[in-house]
Amino acid sequence: MIFERVFPALSWLKNYNKVQFGQDATAAFIVTMLLIPQSLAYAMLAGVPPEVGLYSSILPLVLYAIFGTSTSLSVGPVAVASLMTATALAAIAEQGTASYLTGAITLALLSGAMLVVMGVMKLGMITNLLSHSVISGFISASGIIIALSQLKHIFGIQSHGDNVVTQLLSMIKNIGQFNLMTFVVGASVVLFLLLARRYAKRFFIMLKVPETYASSLAKTAPILGVLSSLGLVYAFDLQAYGVNITGNIPAGLPHLSLTFPSLELVKTLALPALMISVIGYVESISVGKTLGAKRGEKVQPNQELIGLGAANIASGISGGFPVTGGFSRSVVNFDAGAVTQLAGIMTALGIMIASVVLTPVLFFLPKATLAATIIVAVTTLIDFSILKKTWIFSRSDFYAVLATIIITLLLGVEVGVASGVGLSILLHLSRTSKPHVAEVGLIEGTEHFRNVKRYNVKISPNLLCLRPDESLFFVNAAFLEDFILDCINKRQDITNVVIQCSAVNEIDFSALEMLESLNNQLSALHITLSLSEVKGPVMDRLELSGFLQHLSGKVYLSQYKAFKILSEM
Amino acid sequence: MIFERVFPALSWLKNYNKVQFGQDATAAFIVTMLLIPQSLAYAMLAGVPPEVGLYSSILPLVLYAIFGTSTSLSVGPVAVASLMTATALAAIAEQGTASYLTGAITLALLSGAMLVVMGVMKLGMITNLLSHSVISGFISASGIIIALSQLKHIFGIQSHGDNVVTQLLSMIKNIGQFNLMTFVVGASVVLFLLLARRYAKRFFIMLKVPETYASSLAKTAPILGVLSSLGLVYAFDLQAYGVNITGNIPAGLPHLSLTFPSLELVKTLALPALMISVIGYVESISVGKTLGAKRGEKVQPNQELIGLGAANIASGISGGFPVTGGFSRSVVNFDAGAVTQLAGIMTALGIMIASVVLTPVLFFLPKATLAATIIVAVTTLIDFSILKKTWIFSRSDFYAVLATIIITLLLGVEVGVASGVGLSILLHLSRTSKPHVAEVGLIEGTEHFRNVKRYNVKISPNLLCLRPDESLFFVNAAFLEDFILDCINKRQDITNVVIQCSAVNEIDFSALEMLESLNNQLSALHITLSLSEVKGPVMDRLELSGFLQHLSGKVYLSQYKAFKILSEM
Repeated sequence: MIFERVFPALSWLKNYNKVQFGQDATAAFIVTMLLIPQSLAYAMLAGVPPEVGLYSSILPLVLYAIFGTSTSLSVGPVAVASLMTATALAAIAEQGTASYLTGAITLALLSGAMLVVMGVMKLGMITNLLSHSVISGFISASGIIIALSQLKHIFGIQSHGDNVVTQLLSMIKNIGQFNLMTFVVGASVVLFLLLARRYAKRFFIMLKVPETYASSLAKTAPILGVLSSLGLVYAFDLQAYGVNITGNIPAGLPHLSLTFPSLELVKTLALPALMISVIGYVESISVGKTLGAKRGEKVQPNQELIGLGAANIASGISGGFPVTGGFSRSVVNFDAGAVTQLAGIMTALGIMIASVVLTPVLFFLPKATLAATIIVAVTTLIDFSILKKTWIFSRSDFYAVLATIIITLLLGVEVGVASGVGLSILLHLSRTSKPHVAEVGLIEGTEHFRNVKRYNVKISPNLLCLRPDESLFFVNAAFLEDFILDCINKRQDITNVVIQCSAVNEIDFSALEMLESLNNQLSALHITLSLSEVKGPVMDRLELSGFLQHLSGKVYLSQYKAFKILSEM
Repeated sequence: MIFERVFPALSWLKNYNKVQFGQDATAAFIVTMLLIPQSLAYAMLAGVPPEVGLYSSILPLVLYAIFGTSTSLSVGPVAVASLMTATALAAIAEQGTASYLTGAITLALLSGAMLVVMGVMKLGMITNLLSHSVISGFISASGIIIALSQLKHIFGIQSHGDNVVTQLLSMIKNIGQFNLMTFVVGASVVLFLLLARRYAKRFFIMLKVPETYASSLAKTAPILGVLSSLGLVYAFDLQAYGVNITGNIPAGLPHLSLTFPSLELVKTLALPALMISVIGYVESISVGKTLGAKRGEKVQPNQELIGLGAANIASGISGGFPVTGGFSRSVVNFDAGAVTQLAGIMTALGIMIASVVLTPVLFFLPKATLAATIIVAVTTLIDFSILKKTWIFSRSDFYAVLATIIITLLLGVEVGVASGVGLSILLHLSRTSKPHVAEVGLIEGTEHFRNVKRYNVKISPNLLCLRPDESLFFVNAAFLEDFILDCINKRQDITNVVIQCSAVNEIDFSALEMLESLNNQLSALHITLSLSEVKGPVMDRLELSGFLQHLSGKVYLSQYKAFKILSEM
């Protein structure tokens, strides 16, 4: 059904039943409890007002539920995309200004549009071109940057900086502003959250909560941290002791409006929006795939692009910033038993209620609490075991990951992503630029040819038979040319060269030019060049190009035939 | 000998003789005649004073003679690098200002330093990553931009523009400034040069000049155009009719000085300098290789980087702009019989003499003559047959070339190069992201396995045997995973999967993660995953990584063994 392909929601709506509703509602309740503090905190990280975080957690969830394909993915503000948003906007406006907010909305709209276009063009495969290890190095480094950027809220000091070094120096310089009461609040929440992560599940089990819910309930500790710390501020007037609070958050629902950004702004934010889209999508699809695999459920990459794209456009229209599927939240959603995307719609409903009812209460919420929530959340992102694993497994992967981490820490997320992608592509190119080329000889008594280094085979002194184990492209064409010329330099009595093309699935135009030039160079040395076992499609193209008319040798159907004829010459 | 590796000049100096001297001197004389007008013309194209063109043709030639490895390459100002110089400097200063000249010198120094570093680090291979067809499309498009930019000098009008469209519009707008006498001079020189290209060789042969020299002498037509047109201007006072002339060129030799550019300037010019270096090197090495092949002489890529780098640093120190090996000039040098790099040193001497003696005469040289020289020279660069050839041979190459040409024409050389390189890499990645994967079966009566689509082989319904014909990397890992899961979806009775790794030379970390995730997903479906014929180095790494401990199946030494055991299960 075409309708079900475009609106995956139709397929689960058809057979929806009460049991599923109960499961989805429970998951939605727990995720809402988790999403409220996260929305506020990531809004602070992105540098936008707190209500914008809530707005980004309403409509986007509904749109993803309609267009997305994962039953467990929980869409909304996430740490890395929020950091990237702040980085992109730092260049164009001051936090707190109207143009900063316009920038955030533009980023959401742009990245939404880009994702939808990529989805419609079925470009989901493009993200395969990113190396997982490099991405995970990037995310760990981002986690450090995020945690460090939030420490100032825990200490109650000011600090600014483009990278971890300047950030640290600025904090040391301003350490005189240290506020004890802020630190007590922030540090207590950090401690509480860390203890909760460790012991809360056991605690709920002690309270006879069924085990499946206990672990999910344990994850809602942040909302308890939020409520109790704002209670303390209110009760003991901690503001008077210098504790920064969130202040007035306008109660109510987002106003929908689509304002087309200026061309100037689009130009400035296009590249950052692309990076946010791609990184967000990669994070999201890997969460969706991992959780989907546990249920034997298949996530459709191109439809996911459309789902996330629609969510981001919805975020932009409702005054929000870029969103994507978050790892920890999706795991909670999955564990808490969400079975369809209706869980997401109910979560959106929960956040809507919170936006109306809860916002007056959040006036007294200490910023240190939000910072503590962020810091504890991102510790799960920071995982340098990738360095150890790649060191053992592949030294070149290791260097790529290490360079990405260092560059991200020192030069920021944008340069970090770009260099990570660039490095992994360069490494891949340099690896493929040296294809395996075997000199082959005849296994006597058969018509088979094998590598002379590994088999006891018959060769002919005047004949050089080579088998490149790769298609011929511009990246490896020069290597093959040099390889053949080197062989000829070493063995003076060669009069014929045969390239066995059994592994050559394709020849691009640069490789064709190389073959033409090789043919000319060999002719000048009175050596013929022949090909054998050329595959059908490659042969068709060689014929069209006119190359075969200039070829000094012939094209042989089999390497055996070439060997028999040329070695008897 | 290490000395000879660092100073390739030593190897030809040792056995230098009279006959060689005669040949080199003749070639030097002819190349000097060609280089004088080219130096002046490309200086005009680059937007620097004419004497700077001459300075760029003295010391750089000497340094290349010492460090370079090609006996035929003629180093100096060339068309494309001059255009790129003008483009890079347009952003930072007005032509004719001191800071514009400082910029040109900085470009030469930077690109020299980059080339030397690349040479010392033996990065010559990097240029293999550029697709030849894309580069040739870029050079053709640059030829058009150059020719168009010179037309204003022929018409005697002003024009400005970032791309061919604005350039054309600006010319149309200013066509009222059209100066008839300028046009007569310019058009006559164009005509003369085109006729000379066609008939001059025959003419010299008629005069009993030996054929080898006739074709070289024919190439010196530009100097005749220069001398006769400046003679006409002087004799008939054409200035009075509005013909623009070169004016005062300070006579004398360049002053050597090394001024370190500001960090700000280095930052701005680093990327353009890199592009100029890479494009210049690619042009140069391909000329060197082509001519070298005719004499069975091998050009050393890394030493060439050092040679060209030294030449550019020398150009910067003597107040010049970026230089490289030019195609037409090198062919003349080769045809005229240059046998060692001493020809280059003697050419430098010729230009030195011209700088001192000839400059007063050049006062009356019409700019239209220089423009005519450039236009006729670049027509040899413009060759769109690449479009036809790639259209026939490989559609994806065709689109990459076409896009590069259009982007270069519309957005300029810098964006053009960058997109060309980016496009060819993307195309390559997307091609390698879908490796050939064959389902294999047993050829009965043997232990060989072949593609089920091409051979009549035995397969077992519960066993899926796949042979990926490529190493496993991040670019193709996801494809293989999807391929296997699709096969399993289609054939419900599969209980065992075997990946035959006979063509897998390497597995990177992303591919390892994919195998781990695949193993988990198959386990959840109660399907085992096994490997067969894993190569030694790959096996060592898999063992280190701990992957084999989680593998649900086994690693079999041969595909036959795997088949025998698993199909009997």
